[in-house]
Amino acid sequence: MRFAKRHGTENDFVILPDPDGALDLYPRLVARLCDRRAGLGADGVLRVVRTDSAADSGWFMDYRNADGSTAEMCGNGIRVFARYLLDKGMLAGGEFTVGTRAGPRAVRVEPGGITAQMGMPEVLGTGRASVGGRVCEGVRISVGNPHLACLVDEPLDKFDLTVAPELDPRQFPEGGNVELVRVIGRAAVQMRVHERGSGETRSCGTGAVAAAVAAARAAGESTGAWRVGVPGGDLTVTLDAHTSWLTGPAVIVAEGELCESWLSAAQVRK
Amino acid sequence: MRFAKRHGTENDFVILPDPDGALDLYPRLVARLCDRRAGLGADGVLRVVRTDSAADSGWFMDYRNADGSTAEMCGNGIRVFARYLLDKGMLAGGEFTVGTRAGPRAVRVEPGGITAQMGMPEVLGTGRASVGGRVCEGVRISVGNPHLACLVDEPLDKFDLTVAPELDPRQFPEGGNVELVRVIGRAAVQMRVHERGSGETRSCGTGAVAAAVAAARAAGESTGAWRVGVPGGDLTVTLDAHTSWLTGPAVIVAEGELCESWLSAAQVRK
Repeated sequence: MRFAKRHGTENDFVILPDPDGALDLYPRLVARLCDRRAGLGADGVLRVVRTDSAADSGWFMDYRNADGSTAEMCGNGIRVFARYLLDKGMLAGGEFTVGTRAGPRAVRVEPGGITAQMGMPEVLGTGRASVGGRVCEGVRISVGNPHLACLVDEPLDKFDLTVAPELDPRQFPEGGNVELVRVIGRAAVQMRVHERGSGETRSCGTGAVAAAVAAARAAGESTGAWRVGVPGGDLTVTLDAHTSWLTGPAVIVAEGELCESWLSAAQVRK
Repeated sequence: MRFAKRHGTENDFVILPDPDGALDLYPRLVARLCDRRAGLGADGVLRVVRTDSAADSGWFMDYRNADGSTAEMCGNGIRVFARYLLDKGMLAGGEFTVGTRAGPRAVRVEPGGITAQMGMPEVLGTGRASVGGRVCEGVRISVGNPHLACLVDEPLDKFDLTVAPELDPRQFPEGGNVELVRVIGRAAVQMRVHERGSGETRSCGTGAVAAAVAAARAAGESTGAWRVGVPGGDLTVTLDAHTSWLTGPAVIVAEGELCESWLSAAQVRK
């Protein structure tokens, strides 16, 4: 089984090329692949499958979380996925549409970065979280998944995200991601994020969109481009009247082959 | 740059074959390789270098910690290293000596596991640690590096190792590893370990030796074979009058090639 390891602002992925959909990617195998000590280690798996849907360019991103469950979309993942298609000559040209469980998503590959369409974020109202015992006020935003984006005045390293922030279960019945966002200049913020089920991560694509929406709203704006610095690098979020876009790097780390003995070992079996 | 990823009881390593010693393995590159999101991810790097020393079988294990610093020896690492040499046909036969910074170390590869000579552990006296606010009494043991092995009566999941245990700085001027050890049968223990500088890990070869020494001592013995269950698998420690031996699995995960663009990127430069 061939693999590639890549990351986008240090949100990292194992890519499995499987054009003909021959791979039986059961949850336990995904979890073992993503295991950072017993496997390759990643935040998720991107399986590259050919599709004959008329709505996209012929490729479907089968995204799996590190625990083996499926997910609709992943903003950093789709950028990494798009770069892989181009690098491997599976597509030509810099603009195309990738199939995802959330529907077809537009992607644009340019020298300065890879841009993915993230959909229209929805502001749901205000909310609050207890972050390391401190109350932070924020904005509830849906970017497909639920976020609380909190604008803060202090340096972000003053906050403790080792423990999950406490959210009001009436506002977040299924939990949510919490972003701490600090405005550092004109249309520029820094962000730290605690992801539901994952803890603090070095980057989160939908979180960056939520951070930009909250910062824009505080500035009395609803469109425009925002630079979002995350611990793993720099992203740009562009808001327009109909959708949002995430731009950033996609880094190729390594390629190789999973060993047969590992794949056939008891701990990877169904 | 070719690499292999392997682990021994989930203590994981990036192996870099470099027979002619041509590789410039500077600390920042090692740290980036071991970075679990921006690189391949590992507890350490094992560079495979040819040597002309008469004391070993012609191969030197250049072991580096995940932060890029060098270390003398690694009990799980040398087992993984030995298996690699055999798999690649770089050595024939199941018994040989590997050069390390701690001197030549005997290794034995058998179907049931790979055994590495760990040296003579030294009991230094008693000591104590505060583990998540609870005082644990233990035995201070040197296995080349300093350990406090604490025999406990309770299930190991009752202890909190998310924060480093507090040691008496007069007893551990340079810090130390703390093992929580529970006897579960005749010559059998379970162990959890907090490694100095790394936090809780899924396995620690010298820690397993320290755990066996402490358990043997409590049983009024000083030699014999002890089964040591760690979160990442099962090890066997054999104590004799002159040295100690660590036996366990070595698992091949994957092989591949680091991408040139990653290697030449600014973040990996010296």
